[in-house]
Amino acid sequence: MTGAATDTVLAKAAVLMPEAIAGWSDFLRIPSISAQPDHAGDCRRAAEWACARLAGLGFAASLHETGGHPAVLATHPGPALGADVPHLLYYGHYDVQPPEPLDLWPSPPFTPTIVDGPRGRRMVARGAVDDKGQVAAWLGAFAAWHAATGTLPVRLTVLLEGEEEIGSPHLETFLTTARAQLAADAVVISDTNLWDFTTPAITTSLRGLLYVEIRATAASRDLHSGLFGGVACNPINELTRALGGLRDEAGRVLIPGFYDGVAPLSAEQEAAWAALGFDEAAFLGDVGLTTPAGESGRGVLERLWARPTADLNGIWGGYAGPGAKTVIPAEAGAKLSFRLVPGQNPEAILAGLKRFLAARVHPDLKLDYALFGAAPGIAVATDLPVVAAARTALAEEYAKPPVLIGCGASIPVVESFRRVLGLETLLMGFGLDDDQIHSPGEKFEIACFEHGLRAHIRLLGHLAAA
Amino acid sequence: MTGAATDTVLAKAAVLMPEAIAGWSDFLRIPSISAQPDHAGDCRRAAEWACARLAGLGFAASLHETGGHPAVLATHPGPALGADVPHLLYYGHYDVQPPEPLDLWPSPPFTPTIVDGPRGRRMVARGAVDDKGQVAAWLGAFAAWHAATGTLPVRLTVLLEGEEEIGSPHLETFLTTARAQLAADAVVISDTNLWDFTTPAITTSLRGLLYVEIRATAASRDLHSGLFGGVACNPINELTRALGGLRDEAGRVLIPGFYDGVAPLSAEQEAAWAALGFDEAAFLGDVGLTTPAGESGRGVLERLWARPTADLNGIWGGYAGPGAKTVIPAEAGAKLSFRLVPGQNPEAILAGLKRFLAARVHPDLKLDYALFGAAPGIAVATDLPVVAAARTALAEEYAKPPVLIGCGASIPVVESFRRVLGLETLLMGFGLDDDQIHSPGEKFEIACFEHGLRAHIRLLGHLAAA
Repeated sequence: MTGAATDTVLAKAAVLMPEAIAGWSDFLRIPSISAQPDHAGDCRRAAEWACARLAGLGFAASLHETGGHPAVLATHPGPALGADVPHLLYYGHYDVQPPEPLDLWPSPPFTPTIVDGPRGRRMVARGAVDDKGQVAAWLGAFAAWHAATGTLPVRLTVLLEGEEEIGSPHLETFLTTARAQLAADAVVISDTNLWDFTTPAITTSLRGLLYVEIRATAASRDLHSGLFGGVACNPINELTRALGGLRDEAGRVLIPGFYDGVAPLSAEQEAAWAALGFDEAAFLGDVGLTTPAGESGRGVLERLWARPTADLNGIWGGYAGPGAKTVIPAEAGAKLSFRLVPGQNPEAILAGLKRFLAARVHPDLKLDYALFGAAPGIAVATDLPVVAAARTALAEEYAKPPVLIGCGASIPVVESFRRVLGLETLLMGFGLDDDQIHSPGEKFEIACFEHGLRAHIRLLGHLAAA
Repeated sequence: MTGAATDTVLAKAAVLMPEAIAGWSDFLRIPSISAQPDHAGDCRRAAEWACARLAGLGFAASLHETGGHPAVLATHPGPALGADVPHLLYYGHYDVQPPEPLDLWPSPPFTPTIVDGPRGRRMVARGAVDDKGQVAAWLGAFAAWHAATGTLPVRLTVLLEGEEEIGSPHLETFLTTARAQLAADAVVISDTNLWDFTTPAITTSLRGLLYVEIRATAASRDLHSGLFGGVACNPINELTRALGGLRDEAGRVLIPGFYDGVAPLSAEQEAAWAALGFDEAAFLGDVGLTTPAGESGRGVLERLWARPTADLNGIWGGYAGPGAKTVIPAEAGAKLSFRLVPGQNPEAILAGLKRFLAARVHPDLKLDYALFGAAPGIAVATDLPVVAAARTALAEEYAKPPVLIGCGASIPVVESFRRVLGLETLLMGFGLDDDQIHSPGEKFEIACFEHGLRAHIRLLGHLAAA
């Protein structure tokens, strides 16, 4: 049952929707690619944009230096100073993935473009959904409350970081330093998906991520494969051999201890996921595939939500130009990541990986590692007031109750919020599986954006009324 | 015993040496990179340069279109039309390897630079030795004969091609078409090495080369490793796994039938190579290595000269920029080459490779192949007049007899000359193992160039007198 205030705010939101979409576009136009040092200035511009937007909604907002890209911290006291209302911490990220390969984009990645699609209009841009679009949706909810009532119905703290896509290297330090300013009852994050276009979802498990870059070096210079082939240690041969042996025929990762702590899927969870009626063939078919990879003998949802992985995300070495070059290169490299599930220890797996590879390469091969993230998988609590309010809000907005799902991706900050601040997190997001996040052509359905904005309005209303 | 004419020519060569080196520099300044389409015009310029140089020495010289980079064909009747003198076909190539990576060059690769080194002056440039420098040495020998005697002491045909570094795709057709103009008693090629700085060598075996590019594709677009990891076929995982399984722990290639036709090393050859006193540790130490790779349980010379190999010359896929990108790419690729020894069938090995990889990859992985060369290994005849003349010429020039050696690299045209034209080939070259051919910093010792030039003068003199 929606309250009268919420109804008024929803009506205001309809009037303000073009403005919310225009603001979202402005946000997308800033190429805040955190992985690429050339874009450090753009990251700061994105932070400043968000800071100014929050200040315009009555927040006390400021930028904070982190040692990397800056964080935005903003607070709003709610309807009255000292009022006995819930206090939420909204977290999001303003940085985006690199857009490459550029030639596969239908329009330039930082020129937000609204086009027609099978589900109505959609916004195409890098960051359209991940996470600028989802952030813009809740900013729009705040704006509607602010415009309709002159204030917000609950206390709010907003934290936006600019390094989520590179593993949040400075976030934990910031959380620790700013612990006092980050006090709240619970965290809200919109960086996840709906179950499908018409079915809302609350995400209750996330995989962790261990991400390493490996550099393999051997000879002091590139060598001719005729004059040295069969004698000289070849870094591509060695790296390929060692990395190619990471998984067995059944797709299981062979690093000793890799599966330590991984719980088998409970019968209850298996039944709940089976009830979702997930279409495995359609999921794969949408991206041109026919056959699940990974661990054999398990369902696709189990592989995605409850099983760990090992994926090479990049590899390079030697000659990649046109034609033939008979070179044995001096070096090669790879980027390797593991999606982790609750119970796995990222540090132990990294140590195991190093031992595994060292034992499999030629004595002249030197391996160096750079670490770009090591976060465990986590399960999210479901018995919180904010979760109850979200279930009601989503059920009203979509006219059907939300499903509780897992997510194969990582939001390591959820684990940090729990460990550093003692806070549980609501994961309520409005993306779709075909949004192409991290790929060329990333998009967000306008309808998803609007539903998300309205669901956040309802969430705040229900919490205030609780 | 050098003849009087040869002595006169050697004296003239000393006077003309600065001019020979200047011409060599001019040749090196042309970036005739056959693998890179942007340099097609430079390849033609290099051919025209050589053509003009030969015309200036009394040759009837012209360019011939091949469908790729042009061939230079030039003929000289010798001392008198119809004279009963030997007839040699000199073969060389004017194209060079790509110079990348450019940042590792001490001077720009196409700005020939003479610097001091431990063995006196040396020329640094791409192509300094392979093969422009060796070609310039015999052009200098012809120039000295021409200047001293007004003619050449034997009949000569010169064939220069511009596609040796990309596997000579049009050469066989050209040999077949120009069969009549290419008649000769034997072929001479300078594209090999000395045994060491003071010991000349004649090369009597060459490895062949099978070179393929492999493109692996799976999903219709790049995917997020969190949302698809554990389910989506990852082309880097698959390619790495399949290629990483090409060799066993002992370095043997596992493609069925790969070693069919490979003869074990004869006791005689083993003894002859042992007598060379090759310093395995120094050979590897020169390039920063300590331990032979490849097939275990064999000597380094045997691995280099008498055993086949499998080397990845390039690999690529996914994200290779700074930091982390959690992508499962839509495609990956690799360049893979096999050095082959006499008895192995390149076509059968290519077919075996395709079967081997197809059996090891996920059903959603598509593999496409591009072939950049398929030449068998060959053994060169040693009982020819031209070889006898070369042994004498080298023994005089170096005051010690040449050693007969193998070479791990490939000069596929030697096999083509035998098969298409019925001609045997003398392989008499003046490079050194540390010349860094195909690598940044390629060089040719000026002393090696000068000895080479003089040895070619002597070779022609001895053949004419035979």
